[in-house]
Amino acid sequence: MGDADSAGLERLDRGTCYALLRSVPIGRIVFTEGALPAIQPVNFVLDGDDVIIRTGMGSKLAAATRSAVVAFEADRFDEDSLTGWSVVLVGRAEAVTGEQERTRLAALGLTPWAPGERPHYIRVRPEIVRGRRVPPQRAGG
Amino acid sequence: MGDADSAGLERLDRGTCYALLRSVPIGRIVFTEGALPAIQPVNFVLDGDDVIIRTGMGSKLAAATRSAVVAFEADRFDEDSLTGWSVVLVGRAEAVTGEQERTRLAALGLTPWAPGERPHYIRVRPEIVRGRRVPPQRAGG
Repeated sequence: MGDADSAGLERLDRGTCYALLRSVPIGRIVFTEGALPAIQPVNFVLDGDDVIIRTGMGSKLAAATRSAVVAFEADRFDEDSLTGWSVVLVGRAEAVTGEQERTRLAALGLTPWAPGERPHYIRVRPEIVRGRRVPPQRAGG
Repeated sequence: MGDADSAGLERLDRGTCYALLRSVPIGRIVFTEGALPAIQPVNFVLDGDDVIIRTGMGSKLAAATRSAVVAFEADRFDEDSLTGWSVVLVGRAEAVTGEQERTRLAALGLTPWAPGERPHYIRVRPEIVRGRRVPPQRAGG
């Protein structure tokens, strides 16, 4: 089950982190906007170890993440068993500009949930991959 | 259903944001740690308009959010209907130190999911409350 961190959460290895990421369609991009912490849910796909998301061409997300270091988080929690997991990646975001690359990414099947055109692809190249799981046991106070 | 933002998402009014927040037990604190964007899932309760979370006394979260401006996000998405909502609060975090106040907060029923002692309460006083909903319709490419 892996070792536990200082908060009593089970640390997940990199392979487990990616397996869990592949199991959910939605994550959250964490960035800075006007010097304030910002977060936005996005649907995503993995391209190797990189996270690929889509946005509108002139979106605030596209502007804020231009060559910025961002975090990407996905999680799943079960309210009945009080268990769950969270995976956080940290890395630089970059716009995908090459036409050939964009065509390849378009074939990955990343369909936005929200309406509106989203022709802009952003790639996050993780430098840090961290996962934690709440073990299946009820916590004390 | 309210108006739509530039991304085609329905804007939610403040009352709806708080009603949705009250419907979920888990949110995510967004902060800065060593100049990098950081995010950590937490369970929470509302105390009026404020978000209350618990951490270990010497935790990284407690240190990083000491009088810092943080974001707090909660969301729920449905993979079958491709709908969902997200609420983001931005405000200053502060440690709750008064014994009377801590006793009152302890009665709010905020039981941590993770094991380990979490005697430290953090209050986030929101200055900004923002909610978005993905309307119930399938998106185009």
